[in-house]
Amino acid sequence: MLSKYLAPLSAAPGPSAMLTLLSCGQMSKRVAVVLAGCGVYDGSEIHEASAVLVHLSRGGASVNMFAPNIDQMHVINHLKGEPSQETRNVLVESARLARGNIQDLSKLSAKDHDAVIIPGGFGAAKNLCTWAVQGKDCSVNPEVQAVLQAFHTEGKPIGLCCISPVIAAKVFPGCQVTVGMEKAEKYPNTTDTAAAIAQLGCTHVSKSVSESHVDDKNKLVTTCAFMCDAPIHEVFDGIGAMVKDVLKLA
Amino acid sequence: MLSKYLAPLSAAPGPSAMLTLLSCGQMSKRVAVVLAGCGVYDGSEIHEASAVLVHLSRGGASVNMFAPNIDQMHVINHLKGEPSQETRNVLVESARLARGNIQDLSKLSAKDHDAVIIPGGFGAAKNLCTWAVQGKDCSVNPEVQAVLQAFHTEGKPIGLCCISPVIAAKVFPGCQVTVGMEKAEKYPNTTDTAAAIAQLGCTHVSKSVSESHVDDKNKLVTTCAFMCDAPIHEVFDGIGAMVKDVLKLA
Repeated sequence: MLSKYLAPLSAAPGPSAMLTLLSCGQMSKRVAVVLAGCGVYDGSEIHEASAVLVHLSRGGASVNMFAPNIDQMHVINHLKGEPSQETRNVLVESARLARGNIQDLSKLSAKDHDAVIIPGGFGAAKNLCTWAVQGKDCSVNPEVQAVLQAFHTEGKPIGLCCISPVIAAKVFPGCQVTVGMEKAEKYPNTTDTAAAIAQLGCTHVSKSVSESHVDDKNKLVTTCAFMCDAPIHEVFDGIGAMVKDVLKLA
Repeated sequence: MLSKYLAPLSAAPGPSAMLTLLSCGQMSKRVAVVLAGCGVYDGSEIHEASAVLVHLSRGGASVNMFAPNIDQMHVINHLKGEPSQETRNVLVESARLARGNIQDLSKLSAKDHDAVIIPGGFGAAKNLCTWAVQGKDCSVNPEVQAVLQAFHTEGKPIGLCCISPVIAAKVFPGCQVTVGMEKAEKYPNTTDTAAAIAQLGCTHVSKSVSESHVDDKNKLVTTCAFMCDAPIHEVFDGIGAMVKDVLKLA
């Protein structure tokens, strides 16, 4: 009965925003968003992913979403905080965040986009790479690695938040990223993560939850999001800063 | 290794917001948010739920989340748009949106809260009531019905968006709600839903995606959200209008 009552998720600018863009002579920026499942403990952090989409939409970007077509490392019962015996697919679960409008990561071409953004959550550290279990010795999913290298080679910006900046630290030795403020109570795991980033030959830059850090040389834009124990609207605003900087560089 | 690196979801005001509240002599409003799963086609609409939490946090509210401890009506593979053979529990899946910080709906007391908000998505019309299959002849989950009647009896506001206003239309005959603009292209299912609301003896008020409607007599605040085919930031802002009106009435 209601099968079509909900509109597809669109982050494209509406008619009035489009007119504004056209009158300024600007083209809509095409941004790829790479998801890792749906839920903080085994997938993409939901509120970070949603914030990325809201800010991209407000910035007039057109968005395509992608996720790897692989099984999740595991499924966490988010009520109990424990692994369950289920098997779930990263692409299928990511489709919940994308309201069905998502493609296999193998289809993502850097040539067709101006930027790429990867939200955080444990899925970034479990399904896109193995940081959650291996830290700096992790491996990165080959499709994720190829996508990041393609955008980097083309000089196109890469936006990352929460724990996902560690993927950049693994793929781009010598780069600069932030995962929060070192030695600060509200950032309980930043210091250890920053140390691992340094061991990879990269530079960790301390930034508050409201700030993003731009590595101009590598066109990496990072913000700590839920690595900080902050109210959700502060996380939302910090992601807004990251998205704004990504769109500026795109 | 990273089991604790992500902070719990908190919509409580940070220190600076709390200072502002205290200096104004205001108490933080206690708002219950009732979820219906996690994903537009079989649970709560993810971006609507996230927007509710961001706006409540910015408004200085303290939030408790709840969901019924029942099986979902079914599980939809959001990539294919088809039912799968899985069974999932509404409370367990809602915990993904709540980052684990959620309680059984049976524990929700209107006396301990100043307002309640129910985001939309098919879960509201499948798991909280049976509108998705029975329309105006639907039944409402008894716990949901009891919660809504308790807030109504205490004169406390109820916020609803997308399709969830139909639950109010079923529970409170004669009330006023909006599910969008009738006879408007960007609101493809509003006219039919409005007709069903009228058949229940209620009044449908046409409002755009950016507006909320307040039924002062019943303290119902509604906005159409994804019933409109609008960019996600416009949905986000409309939900902001609804949350603001709920907090004003609380």
